Amino acid sequence: MPTIRLPGLIDPHVHLREPGGTHKEDFESGTRAALAGGITTVLAMPNTQPPLIDSVSLVLAEDAAARHAVCDYGLYLGASGENIYTAKGLAPRCVGLKFYLDATFGPLHLKDLGTLRAHFARWPADRPIACHAEERTLAAVLMCAWLEQRRVHICHVSRRDEIELIRDAKMRGVNVTCEVCPHHLFLSTEDIPFLGAGRSEVRPRLALKNDQAALWANLDVIDCIATDHAPHLPAEKDGPNPPPGFPGLETSLALMLTAVNRGRLALEDVVRRMYDHPLRIFGLPEQPDTWIEVDPDATWTVRGADLHSRSGWTPFEGWTLRGRVERVTLRGREVYRSGAFNVEPGAGRNVAPGTQSTGEIHP
Amino acid sequence: MPTIRLPGLIDPHVHLREPGGTHKEDFESGTRAALAGGITTVLAMPNTQPPLIDSVSLVLAEDAAARHAVCDYGLYLGASGENIYTAKGLAPRCVGLKFYLDATFGPLHLKDLGTLRAHFARWPADRPIACHAEERTLAAVLMCAWLEQRRVHICHVSRRDEIELIRDAKMRGVNVTCEVCPHHLFLSTEDIPFLGAGRSEVRPRLALKNDQAALWANLDVIDCIATDHAPHLPAEKDGPNPPPGFPGLETSLALMLTAVNRGRLALEDVVRRMYDHPLRIFGLPEQPDTWIEVDPDATWTVRGADLHSRSGWTPFEGWTLRGRVERVTLRGREVYRSGAFNVEPGAGRNVAPGTQSTGEIHP
Repeated sequence: MPTIRLPGLIDPHVHLREPGGTHKEDFESGTRAALAGGITTVLAMPNTQPPLIDSVSLVLAEDAAARHAVCDYGLYLGASGENIYTAKGLAPRCVGLKFYLDATFGPLHLKDLGTLRAHFARWPADRPIACHAEERTLAAVLMCAWLEQRRVHICHVSRRDEIELIRDAKMRGVNVTCEVCPHHLFLSTEDIPFLGAGRSEVRPRLALKNDQAALWANLDVIDCIATDHAPHLPAEKDGPNPPPGFPGLETSLALMLTAVNRGRLALEDVVRRMYDHPLRIFGLPEQPDTWIEVDPDATWTVRGADLHSRSGWTPFEGWTLRGRVERVTLRGREVYRSGAFNVEPGAGRNVAPGTQSTGEIHP
Repeated sequence: MPTIRLPGLIDPHVHLREPGGTHKEDFESGTRAALAGGITTVLAMPNTQPPLIDSVSLVLAEDAAARHAVCDYGLYLGASGENIYTAKGLAPRCVGLKFYLDATFGPLHLKDLGTLRAHFARWPADRPIACHAEERTLAAVLMCAWLEQRRVHICHVSRRDEIELIRDAKMRGVNVTCEVCPHHLFLSTEDIPFLGAGRSEVRPRLALKNDQAALWANLDVIDCIATDHAPHLPAEKDGPNPPPGFPGLETSLALMLTAVNRGRLALEDVVRRMYDHPLRIFGLPEQPDTWIEVDPDATWTVRGADLHSRSGWTPFEGWTLRGRVERVTLRGREVYRSGAFNVEPGAGRNVAPGTQSTGEIHP
C-alpha cells in the first residue's frame, strides 16, 4: 500500500510525569511513544511534582525535557493562587497557562472565582489559556473569557451538555476552542465492565453513549484531538486507589484513521484537528521539514506490552486498528522507521516562543 | 417628627414555611411580620414541603396563602429536573422560576448544566428567573442567560467577587439584576462569635469584612434589597444541626433607614431598591392606594421577643435602629398602626399575573 505523508502531528495535552513520577513515564519514554504515534510535538501539562507554577519548577522541567525529549515539546504553566502576578513574566517560556478547575486535587486546584478572573485579566491576551472545566464550570469559564474579550481553550470535552454549550457560545461569538480525547470518542460507560473499575478511571470520566454520540455529532465544534496521555502503571491502576488517566499517544492517530476508514470523518478532518488547529491555537511554528509517513490501510492489534510508554498498558488492548505510522522525520532527519528509533535523548526542541532551542539535530 | 410616606415595599425573597414548616412560620405570621416591617408584597420561595414544582404543590401554597396572608404575595416555582417541560404552563401563576444551584440540599438542588439550559430556553422570556448561584456558578448562570439573550435575577449576592462579576457583566450588556440582603450589608464573619455558631448559620454564609465593604462600594450594582427572611426557631438554631437562615422582614427597612441616617446612602436609593426595582424586575402592578408611613427619626431597639415572625429571634438583637413604620395602608385600608393590626387572614392578594385575586379588602 502507498503511504501518505502528513505533517508531524501536535498533541496539545500530555502528561509526561517528569519531574516527580518518572517510574511511570519521563520525557524520553513519553516522547518516544509520541513519535511512534506520529506525534512530533507534545504540549506537557504542569501537574508534575513539583507542579510547574514558578521559575524554579519550570527550570526543573525545562532541563529534564532538554536532556531527554526525542520530539518537540512545550510546557504549560499551572495557574495558582500564588502566581497571579508572576505568571505573565513566565509566559514566553510556556505554551499556555493551564487552569485546573474541576475534579483535580492538590495545589493546582483553583476554586476561587476572583483568582480565575485575575489570571484571565493578567495573562497576555495573545497567549493561550487552557482550562479543565466541566459542566457549569465550563459555562463559568466562558463567561470570564468573554468578559475579558479573550480567547480560551477547553480541555478534554466529554459530555453532550458541554459540546453543545461550546457550540452555542461559538455561534454567539465567544472566542473559544476545544479539544476532545480519543477515549471519549471511542469508549463510554458501557466499556467499564470490560476495562475494570480501576483501569477505566479517567477524568473527565468515561461518559454515556449519549454523550459519546454528541461528540461525533458535533465534530465541527471540536478543534483538536488531544490524547490527555496520562500514564500510570498497571499495578497502580489495579490497586486500591487507582489514579485516573489513560496512556494515549500511540493509539490516537490509528483510532482516528480507523474512523476515517469507517467513513465517520475524512482524513482532512483528522489533519485539521491533529495539526492545523493546534498549530494555530498554540501559535506554534510551521515545520516543513518535519513529517510523518503513514500506511492508512495497514491493520495492527493494540498490545500494551508493545507500546513505548513506560505505563505498559492501554484501554484499547486487543483492538484491531487501521493505519500505522511507518516513518517520522523530525526537522529533516528520519528518527523513527517501522518500530525502530534513530534519535538521541535531547533531540527535541522547546517550541515556546521565548525559549532557546536546546535540542539540536545534525542530519 | 413628621412621618414620610413611601410606597408599600416589595420583598422579592422570603421563606414563609407554608406548607410543611408552619411551626416556624406561616403565611399569616410571616405577612404580619412583613406589614410591621413596611413590606406590603412578599415573593415567597418554593423550597417548602412539598416543594412548589407542579400544579398540585402550587395549589397547596396558593390555597394556604389565599386563606392566611395579610399582605400581598407571589409564589416562585422551583426549577427541577422533573418540570422542564411543564414549568412554562405554570408561569402565569408564579412570579418567577427559582433555581437552587448552590449550597442547597433536597429535590430542588439542580446540578446538571443541561437541565439549567433547558429551563432557560423554555421559561417565558418576559418572566423572571431567579437564581441562587454563588461564585463560579454565578458566572455559569450569566453565560447561560446571555446565550439565551434573556434576563436573569441573582439572589442574595454576598461576596466581592460576585458583585464585581455582576458589575462587569452589566457593563458588557448582560441582562442581569441582583439583590443583596441586609444581613450581608450589616454583618460579617466578625459577628459570628457574638451571634454564636448556630445562630450565624445562613446561606450564603456571612462573608468577610472585605466582601461586605465591596457590597457597599457597589451599591449602584445592587438592584434590590431582599431579606431572604428564613425563620427558624431558636431551639433549632441552637440545636445540633442548626438550619441556615435569619428572619429579616421586620428589620430590613429600619436597617436601611439607619444607614441613610448615617449618610451611607440616600432615602431615594432605599426606595429604588425596595420598591421601584423589584416592581419593575418582577413585573408587578403599581398600587397607588398602598403605602406606608415611616418616622425616619424614631429610634427603637430590636428585640426578637417583640417581633411578629413566629421564629421569635433576630440576628440584630439589641441593635438600636433609626426609622420606624408607623402606619401601613393596603389597597386603601389602614391595616397596621403603631404595632396594632387591623386585618383579617386572607386579605392578601396574589400578585402573579395569571391568578385571580383571592383576597378582598372592603374599606
